[in-house]
Amino acid sequence: MRDRRRGRVEWPDVARKRWTVDELIAGVRGGDRRALARAISYVENADPLASPLVRALYPETGKAAVIGVTVFIRSMGSRGHRGGLAEATLQAVLLLDAAGKDVVFVETVGAGQSDVEVTGIADTVLLVLMPGSGDSVQALKAGIMEIPDVIAVNKSDHPAAKTMLTEVRSIVALGPVERRPQVLLTDALRGENVPALWGLLETDRASLERDGLLDERRRENLAAEVFAVASSRARSRLEEQVADDPELRSVLAAVQRRELDPLTAVDEILEKVFHLDRSDDR
Amino acid sequence: MRDRRRGRVEWPDVARKRWTVDELIAGVRGGDRRALARAISYVENADPLASPLVRALYPETGKAAVIGVTVFIRSMGSRGHRGGLAEATLQAVLLLDAAGKDVVFVETVGAGQSDVEVTGIADTVLLVLMPGSGDSVQALKAGIMEIPDVIAVNKSDHPAAKTMLTEVRSIVALGPVERRPQVLLTDALRGENVPALWGLLETDRASLERDGLLDERRRENLAAEVFAVASSRARSRLEEQVADDPELRSVLAAVQRRELDPLTAVDEILEKVFHLDRSDDR
Repeated sequence: MRDRRRGRVEWPDVARKRWTVDELIAGVRGGDRRALARAISYVENADPLASPLVRALYPETGKAAVIGVTVFIRSMGSRGHRGGLAEATLQAVLLLDAAGKDVVFVETVGAGQSDVEVTGIADTVLLVLMPGSGDSVQALKAGIMEIPDVIAVNKSDHPAAKTMLTEVRSIVALGPVERRPQVLLTDALRGENVPALWGLLETDRASLERDGLLDERRRENLAAEVFAVASSRARSRLEEQVADDPELRSVLAAVQRRELDPLTAVDEILEKVFHLDRSDDR
Repeated sequence: MRDRRRGRVEWPDVARKRWTVDELIAGVRGGDRRALARAISYVENADPLASPLVRALYPETGKAAVIGVTVFIRSMGSRGHRGGLAEATLQAVLLLDAAGKDVVFVETVGAGQSDVEVTGIADTVLLVLMPGSGDSVQALKAGIMEIPDVIAVNKSDHPAAKTMLTEVRSIVALGPVERRPQVLLTDALRGENVPALWGLLETDRASLERDGLLDERRRENLAAEVFAVASSRARSRLEEQVADDPELRSVLAAVQRRELDPLTAVDEILEKVFHLDRSDDR
């Protein structure tokens, strides 16, 4: 079987159970781990079966508490594929939710504004800061980074940890009192304050639910996700079509030769690819 | 006169010179500061006159050295308008170039991956790091942040400056030798090493030109800008159309009620707004 996306050949594994879509749906619904693992693989590989699976299970989602964890900076093979990654993450979260998981953690891949796409899937956002990572504190201060629900300053034995705690507390104190995040020192390695962190996440969620804010946030998040995935697909379509279509390639070449300005080129490309009329384009 | 975008009324200023488009084009071309200032205002306000201006002047651009400066973290009113900001920045740079400026500096608004759009306008990228801003160093290390052409570690008298210099040098030493950025300590306030920094920027540009890499980079940058602006416009169009069209609003509402899954909604919206057929959608 050829994996469409990666272009490599995957040998049929005779030891692996062959699932029909209906069996997979029933398996995920019943919390079967193998079914769930297979379903998530389909999502990760952008298999054509992923969509009908998620479509069928979607009405049963919305029960899990989805917690987004951000600012860890990780080296990922995801550069340039953020759209696709966000899409697969959303589907995987929905599958875990449909499988009856109580809590789903979503970790973001990088620091800064691009997190929005992934944390948009989460009900609650936990920001983990490392002492010495000054940019995050600056980004919070400047309002570039979304204020999360709970902030953990990890590595509590680091010499700069207490200073950072104070600094972050003074920044969040400037925000509205009703949604002011709790900030605490933790040490993940020694497990220090981790139960307290969990307690804060639970309390925060309970207060969101009580005030009706959880439903509101989920509605906003879902709309934002739909826009994010749609824009990302629109962009892929643009790139594919410009690569394939000699007329569009020549538009781009004229820009590169400084004969046609970039914004007129944008108009021509949008008209050709999406049939957008330039008169009502902006 | 009504400013279309901001919805506020701007009173005609009798003391200000009234320019025709042709006068403005001639003014910018001749390096007239008032003409340039007016042209940039049109670009900033997304005035309908901005496009014909840039279109006419574009063939004369490409002479200025455009230097992008990144990581300063600033509080900006630009959140959620990155696309529009990138578009206006691109046009403003082209106008400054057409007006005969030798060097144009472009400063980015934030840290991290979203810089790409703005630094894509630049020929050369200068990264300014502050001692203590650990995230940037981590982002460089993890390959999340694009390796710039020149790196300045500013505030050379900061206790952590030398350590940061060594750390950054060891990170860039892992990259290809032919495009390894020079790293130096500067102090902007005292002007320390600023001439040396300028020298590095000039040397870097000369070597890019000599190796034919400048042309190549500009071609790539222009293509990337066209895609970025086109995607951003496609996204605005999506948002506007979903806001205006009751049928699309009901698709979104069905997602929010968990009746229709997000990815099926994406297909339906793309089909309706951009006439994208779902069968060849991905």
